[in-house]
Order: sequence, then structure tokens, then C-alpha cells
Amino acid sequence: MIKRLGDSTIRFEKEPSIVGFASVVGKKEAEGPLKDDFDKIIYDMHLGQDTWEKAESVLQKEALSIALTKSKKDARDIDFIFAGDLLNQCISSSYGLKDFNIPYLGQYGACSTMVQGLVMAAVMVASGASHMSACVTSSHFCSAERQYRFPLDYGGQRPQSSQWTVTGAGCCILSDSEEKSLPKVKVATVGRIVDLGVNDQNNMGAAMAPAATDTLMRFFRDTKTSPSDYDMIYTGDLGKIGSELLYELMQKEGVDIRHNHKDCGVMIFDKKEMDVHSGGSGCGCCSSVLCSHILNNVTARKQKSVLVIATGALLSPTSIQQKETIPSIAHLVNIIA
Amino acid sequence: MIKRLGDSTIRFEKEPSIVGFASVVGKKEAEGPLKDDFDKIIYDMHLGQDTWEKAESVLQKEALSIALTKSKKDARDIDFIFAGDLLNQCISSSYGLKDFNIPYLGQYGACSTMVQGLVMAAVMVASGASHMSACVTSSHFCSAERQYRFPLDYGGQRPQSSQWTVTGAGCCILSDSEEKSLPKVKVATVGRIVDLGVNDQNNMGAAMAPAATDTLMRFFRDTKTSPSDYDMIYTGDLGKIGSELLYELMQKEGVDIRHNHKDCGVMIFDKKEMDVHSGGSGCGCCSSVLCSHILNNVTARKQKSVLVIATGALLSPTSIQQKETIPSIAHLVNIIA
Repeated sequence: MIKRLGDSTIRFEKEPSIVGFASVVGKKEAEGPLKDDFDKIIYDMHLGQDTWEKAESVLQKEALSIALTKSKKDARDIDFIFAGDLLNQCISSSYGLKDFNIPYLGQYGACSTMVQGLVMAAVMVASGASHMSACVTSSHFCSAERQYRFPLDYGGQRPQSSQWTVTGAGCCILSDSEEKSLPKVKVATVGRIVDLGVNDQNNMGAAMAPAATDTLMRFFRDTKTSPSDYDMIYTGDLGKIGSELLYELMQKEGVDIRHNHKDCGVMIFDKKEMDVHSGGSGCGCCSSVLCSHILNNVTARKQKSVLVIATGALLSPTSIQQKETIPSIAHLVNIIA
Repeated sequence: MIKRLGDSTIRFEKEPSIVGFASVVGKKEAEGPLKDDFDKIIYDMHLGQDTWEKAESVLQKEALSIALTKSKKDARDIDFIFAGDLLNQCISSSYGLKDFNIPYLGQYGACSTMVQGLVMAAVMVASGASHMSACVTSSHFCSAERQYRFPLDYGGQRPQSSQWTVTGAGCCILSDSEEKSLPKVKVATVGRIVDLGVNDQNNMGAAMAPAATDTLMRFFRDTKTSPSDYDMIYTGDLGKIGSELLYELMQKEGVDIRHNHKDCGVMIFDKKEMDVHSGGSGCGCCSSVLCSHILNNVTARKQKSVLVIATGALLSPTSIQQKETIPSIAHLVNIIA
């Protein structure tokens, strides 16, 4: 049912269908170029909660609820849910999803978590272990700022290479439905941890670009395809600087992706006007763009085969204080119309 | 290849084999009743590193290396590795495993992570997505104390219901080998998040026992079996108090497990002499006991069919400060000789 291709790529012989997807974002994200693609816009950054962490939990709850409603499914239809976020011990996922009563498998791949969850959900469905599985991830600007940059009053200046944590969540529901009009997950490549020694936490794009290159190159080798076989290659959130570096690294491997590549972190904000420096980031960046603009395009058959490569930096504030370098990872899925 | 049973249980039709397993523990754990079962004992809590977090990374590295050596495999033979720990952003896994170059999928289920990883690795192997996959988890008393109970100088007194974080790691390697002498993973039940309102972080056993009950009862219903069908039911780390509560909760469901139940957190320490209060805990507790005593028993056919249910408390220091209750989860596998 699932076939190995080459080194570390898997091909779903019976391709899982994306029967539902939904995105929820904050006000700033909804002022960007993708505003018409999102399902719900949150104008109250607190989402009616008394802490940022609980607010982020509500983002996940909303994304899953809307995906269920859009696909006319009930939480009881979902066999397994894969979820994750950036908070310590992934609390926005555990608290956000606990009331749904769905068998739960917490994932941690930093900003790559959405595609990791998608790969796992696809494996569950394609293997017969599940009729329907879901994945959801989130991030919230304020909970991330508190956790990673506290005390904020210190006013550390953000360099141009830094990225802006997206307030948002995205959810996908995968099923073994054979309905032809639905987007399908065809191939996946699981990332390896790559660490080329970058230790600047304000330049995550540079830390993650080598991981994206490693995964892309293995995918192309394993599938014997090239960039021109795909309508678009979307990276998770390398940002502007990380994307430029990706072009250079891919060029060194003899592969040019400049002409059909976009980065979710660059797409979600209007860089000129929004003061986000290198672009968006966070587990909610790739997930909210995937579960809106990208899947809208594939569903409408504007794009018939796309690659989504979510990148994650597997550091922590502690590892940075201890002068460690930043290990990164990138997971890939090929989604087809 | 994988069959759904009832509500949320999966049956591996071609059962993945456990081709290798290994455990590494600290000095205190090696002074307990299971001392002769462990593969390696660490007498230097620093493991030659300058921080506790790096020391914990080395535990994972050692556990995987020994499991590879014992099974005569190479890191290149492993298609996917599932790993996790209790540290923020799971850094002992990402830093500990980065040099092995194995496609990596980070898991977070608190102290339930080992069985979660085992379920995922088994799914990968049974579905044909992988010939060989591994899982590894760790915890370290000192990195956990620093993260969860800092500043230690405050000297908060440990109540009798508290548990002692195990310094240890365990690793399992699963493969599609059909060699009959190897232990096999036959059935798995994925846990749901259960939260009955316990908010005392010094009584995790009480928070987790309802999750263990929920998973066990669903497993018995889905498989139409009862406790007497199994040689032993091992829970992850409910400790003494959590185990007593589990007996009561199971009794309310009409099921008596007192006669063939043991808890890894109780087994690993000598409660009378070791001042560990309710018992051991941490991602390294269930994994080091599973990958030593339990799998030794199954390999030697002293036990032919056992249940391993690892429990996890999905809280964080932040959620506790915010007066949240403690959501818990329990994942189960049935391992057969």
C-alpha cells in the first residue's frame, strides 16, 4: 500500500484524499496578500481567553472545527489526530484538542510540524490503519514572543534576517475516499536533521535552507523527477533570506528552482508595508498558507501537482544560551489535484 | 496490512519484529531491582558534557548505538527514527540524534512518548513504508529538575505523591524480518486526551490513571480480550499511588488487573530504600524498563504476550502557573513472543 522509493521517500499507492481543510489567522495576516483565502480572521488576539497560550489553543480548536464543518464530518469520524506547536510541551495542541476526544499523537518538528503531521496522517490512511485522520498546527505571535523573547521590555532590536511569528492555525483532514475531485497526497520525503553550524537565532532562514536543500535533492533523486515536473514548489517558512540561500544551495547541486518556488513565510505578509523583515514563521505559517491558498489552488485545479516542504529549526532557548548551533529539518509532500 | 479493530485499536497483520533494543541508565537506577537487565550504566551524571541537556542527548545516542550494535545493524539500515523527550522543544532528541543522519520524526507525548514512537515505527514497518524503523526516548534527573523545578535552591519539599525522574534512555529497532524468535508488535491502541480535573503537578499518577483506564478499557473492548489473556500488564509510570488509583478505576469498570499488573515507575526503584516517593517517571522510565527487563522476558519467552501502556501528562510549567488542570494520555502496545 505504501512503497519505498530510493533512499527515504514513500509513495502512497492508494493516495489519501484531503477531504477537508481550514485556516484561521490573526488580523495582521489577514491584511496580507492572501487575505481572501483564509476561512476565519481573528480580530481579538486574546480570542476571549485570559492568556496567550489559551488563545493559541483556541486557534487549533477553531481550525479543526471549521475543517470538520467544511467537510461535513464529525469529530467522531476522525480516527487519529496529529498535532503540534512551538510552545513548551506543546500545550496549545494538548489543551486545544482535548475536548474533541480523538486519539491523539503529538508531533514536534518546530515549523515543519504541519507537513510531518500530514505525512503521518497519510501513512495511517494509506496503510488501512485509519479511514480518516487529521493534522493541525498553530502558532501565536504573542505566546511565541513571551516564550522565546521574554522579557519583551528589554526591547531587543530585530535584525533584518529575523522572522515574524504568524498568528494562525491550519488543519487538514485526510481520508481513504476515492472521490476524484479531491486533492491527494501522492509522495512524501521525511527529512533528516541537518546542522551546518549556523547559531544565529535571528537568522533561522539560513539555518533551515540546507535542510530544505537536502530533502528536495533526495526527493528529486528518489522520484527521478525535476522542478519542472511540478507547478509550484512551496517551502514552509524560509523567509526572504532563507529562500535566496536555498536557490544558491540548489544551484550548487545543479538544480534551478527560482522559476517555480514560493515561500509561505514570504507569501503571507506584504514585506514592503508590514515590517516583518525576512517574513513569517511559526508552526501556523506553513499550515495556514497550505490550508488556504495552496489547497484552494489545487482544489480549483489551478495547480495540478505541487511540492510543500515545511522547514523547522530544532533549537530551544536553552540550547542557544549554551552556544549550540541550530539543527534543522525539512519534510516534503507532493500534493496532486 | 494494518486492520482497524473496533474504535481505536489497530492490528498489525504482518507483525513488525523487534530486532534490537537497548537501555542505558544512571547509577541510582542501576542500584534498583532491575540492575542486571540494563545494557549500560552511567556513573558520571554529566556523561562527559558541560550541561545536563547535552548529557541527556548522549543518553539517546548511547541507547541507539547499543541497540544498533546488539542487532548488528548500521544507522544506514534505519529508514525512520521516532524520538522524543521532556525538554523544551525536545532538544535531547534533536541534538542527540543529529549525527546519525536518519530521517527523523519528533514525537511528543510526555512520558508516553516511547510507546507512541513504537506505535508509529510499527505502522511504518507494517505498511511497507519502511523495512526498519527505530524509536528512542530519554529523560535525565538533572535536566528535568532544572527545567521543571528551578530554582532548586528554593528547596520545595517533595510530597509522598511525587515521582523521581529517571536518568535513562531506551531504544527499540523494528523490522519487517519474519524471524520467528524475535518479539513482535501485534496490536496497538492510541490514547485519547483525558482530563478529570487533577491540577496537582506533584501527583501525576492521579492525573494519568484515568487515561490509562480509558485506553485499557478501549483495548479490551476492541480486541474482545480480558486481563487474563496477557502474562503481564505493564504501565509506564503511574507510580505507586497512580497504580492504586488505576486498580480502583478499572474495578469500577468491572475489570480486575491487580494480579497481573506492574508499573515501570514502581519496578525501577527500590521504594523502601531509595527515597523516590511514589516511584520513577520521565520519558526514560518506561523506555529503559521496556528495553531491558520487559523485552528480556519476552525474548526469553518467560512471558509470551504482554501489554505495555505508557502514560503521559500533557502539561507544562506555564499551564500549571495558569491554574490549568492536567490533561493526560496513555498509548498501548501488545508485544508477543
